[in-house]
Amino acid sequence: VRGVPGEPRQTVADLGEDDLLAQVFPILAGAGGTTGLVTGPGDDAAVLAWAAGDVAGLVATTDAMVRDRDWLDAWSSGADVGAKVAAQNLADVAAMGARPVALLVTLVMEAATPVGWVLDLAHGLAEVARSATCPVIGGDLSSAPDGTLVVSVTALGSLDGRRPVLRSGAEPGDVVAVAGTLGLAAAGWRLLHAGREDAHTEAVARQRRPRPPLDRGPAAADAGATAMVDLSDGLLRDAGRVARASGVRVALRSDPLADDVARLSGALGDEQARDCVLAGGEEHSLLATFPAGAALPHGFRIVGEVTGGAGVTLDGVTQSARGWDHFGG
Amino acid sequence: VRGVPGEPRQTVADLGEDDLLAQVFPILAGAGGTTGLVTGPGDDAAVLAWAAGDVAGLVATTDAMVRDRDWLDAWSSGADVGAKVAAQNLADVAAMGARPVALLVTLVMEAATPVGWVLDLAHGLAEVARSATCPVIGGDLSSAPDGTLVVSVTALGSLDGRRPVLRSGAEPGDVVAVAGTLGLAAAGWRLLHAGREDAHTEAVARQRRPRPPLDRGPAAADAGATAMVDLSDGLLRDAGRVARASGVRVALRSDPLADDVARLSGALGDEQARDCVLAGGEEHSLLATFPAGAALPHGFRIVGEVTGGAGVTLDGVTQSARGWDHFGG
Repeated sequence: VRGVPGEPRQTVADLGEDDLLAQVFPILAGAGGTTGLVTGPGDDAAVLAWAAGDVAGLVATTDAMVRDRDWLDAWSSGADVGAKVAAQNLADVAAMGARPVALLVTLVMEAATPVGWVLDLAHGLAEVARSATCPVIGGDLSSAPDGTLVVSVTALGSLDGRRPVLRSGAEPGDVVAVAGTLGLAAAGWRLLHAGREDAHTEAVARQRRPRPPLDRGPAAADAGATAMVDLSDGLLRDAGRVARASGVRVALRSDPLADDVARLSGALGDEQARDCVLAGGEEHSLLATFPAGAALPHGFRIVGEVTGGAGVTLDGVTQSARGWDHFGG
Repeated sequence: VRGVPGEPRQTVADLGEDDLLAQVFPILAGAGGTTGLVTGPGDDAAVLAWAAGDVAGLVATTDAMVRDRDWLDAWSSGADVGAKVAAQNLADVAAMGARPVALLVTLVMEAATPVGWVLDLAHGLAEVARSATCPVIGGDLSSAPDGTLVVSVTALGSLDGRRPVLRSGAEPGDVVAVAGTLGLAAAGWRLLHAGREDAHTEAVARQRRPRPPLDRGPAAADAGATAMVDLSDGLLRDAGRVARASGVRVALRSDPLADDVARLSGALGDEQARDCVLAGGEEHSLLATFPAGAALPHGFRIVGEVTGGAGVTLDGVTQSARGWDHFGG
C-alpha cells in the first residue's frame, strides 16, 4: 500500500529511495556553495577540486551496513562485515577512476555488543585497508538502543591528476566492458538463505566478502574510459544508471555472460543463475564504457555496446531495471 | 556489574569506550600504511598530508547521532538534529585549525520514518552548511530495523597551508584560553529534562543547536596556538585530554568562569550551574593553548595556564575527569 504523496505522515517506505533522494537533493544543492565541487551526490562518489583550477582532486564517498538488513550475524562474522563495508566503499572510489587513500569508520552499537565482535570487525577492516594501501584514519563509537548495530564508512581517494570518470560520459559507439565477476555475491546470498552453503563455496565467500577489482578503476581511467560505475545493485540496474546519466542506451549481449551463468548453473539452475548475473547486487565489479577501438585494460571484457536511445537491452530486448531499492520503492 | 577482562562474551558496556578504543587502535594502526598520514585516530580529526612533503593537508573527521541516545524526538526537530550533527563535526575540523570544505551524510532509518522528518533534517544540515560555506557533497540512505534512526556525518577540512594544531603541543608556561560559551548546552539538557524549557531559552536553544566558533579555529592556528580541542565532553574532561596528550598540567582558574556560572545560576542554582560550566558536554566551544604573551585572537579569553605535572586543576585543586563516556565506562 502506497501513501498519498504529500500526506503529512508519509513514510520513507511509502516513498521509496529514489523519490526520497529527489526531494532531498534540492534542499542540499547549493547549500554551502559548490566552489571546488566537480560532482556532487548522484555519482559513485563526490569529487572535490582540491587544487584550485585543477580538476584533479579528492574523491569522497560514504556507505553504511546495518545488521539484519545488510548482514545477518548467523551468516557473517564481524571480520566479514568489516571487510565488506570497506570494500564496497573503496569500489565507489575506484569507480571514479581514483586510488583509495583513507577510510573513516563509525560504529553505532547496542551496549550488549560483544567486544570480540568489535575487534573482529577491526581485523576485517584492517585486512582490506592493508590490501588497498588505504589506512583507517579516523572513526567514532556511539552507543545505540538495543537491537541496533550499524557500521558506516567514508572512503577518500585521490585522482592523482586523472579526470574523474562519471556515469554521464558514455557515447553511442562506445563499447561496454566489465572487470570482475558477476552474480557470485547474489548466488551466495541465495545459497545461504536456502541453507545450501556447500553448493558453491566461492559464491558464499564472495557474498561475505566482495572483492572489487580496485586497481582496475584507475587503469580504466588511464585507458580513456568515458563512463564507469561499480555494480552494487546489479548489472541491469547499474547499467541503467549509466544509460540515464549519459542519455544513451546500454545494449548488452548474453554471449559474453554465458560463462558467468554457467559457473552458477550447477548450484542454482539456469534461471536463477541468469538472474544473479543480470540483477544480483553486492558484487562491486566495475562496468565501464570505452571508445570503440580503445585498448581495454587487462581484466576488462566486452559485454555490449552503447547506442542511441535509452534504457538497457539484452540481445535487443528491453530490460526492466531489476535490482535493489533500500526501501522497496 | 563489570565483566571479567578477557571473558569471551564481554560486552562494550562492560569495557567502556576508552578501553575499547585502546584495543581497537592497535588493530587498525599501520594497516594500509600511514604514508601521508600526519595524525590518525585520537585527535579531534585526522590529517592527511595531501601534497607530498607538505604538512599542509586534508583534515577528516566523523561523528554520529543516534535517536534516543543523542537526541529525543520530543525535544529536537529533524532540523535541530541536522544542524547539531553538522556543527559538532565542523567543530572537530576547526579544532585542528582547519577550514571546513565538505560534509558527507549517512542516514540509517526505520521504514516508518516520516518523509517530513528527513526533509527537515536536510534543511538543518543545509543551514549549517550554508553558514560554514561547506557543501554536503555526498551521502547514503539505508533502511534499518524498527526503532533505529542514526545520522552519521563526515566532515572534511583544509589547513590552507597551516600546521595542524594537535592536542599534544601544549607547553608549560602557555596560557589556556576558550572561545565560545560554556555550559549552555548542558544547562539546556537539564532544563528540558526537568520540563523547565522556559527557564533559560538560550541554553535550551544551544542544547538543540550548538554554535561552535568555527572561524576561531584557523584564527587560533594563525595566532600560534600550541594545542587545541573542541569541548564536546566538558571542560574538565577535554582539558584533561590536552594535559594527557601534551604531558602537562592544565591549571584552570574559577575567576574567569564566574560570568559563565552566573549566567546559568538563576535557572539552575549555583551548584548545577558550576557543574554545567565545568563538566557540561555538547558545547563545542574551542579550548586552545598559546605561548605566554601571544596576542590572543578576538573571541578567546584566558581561563588558566599550562604548568608542569599532569591532570587538570581548578584553583590549584586536582579535578577528576568528569564528563561523558558513551558506554558509561
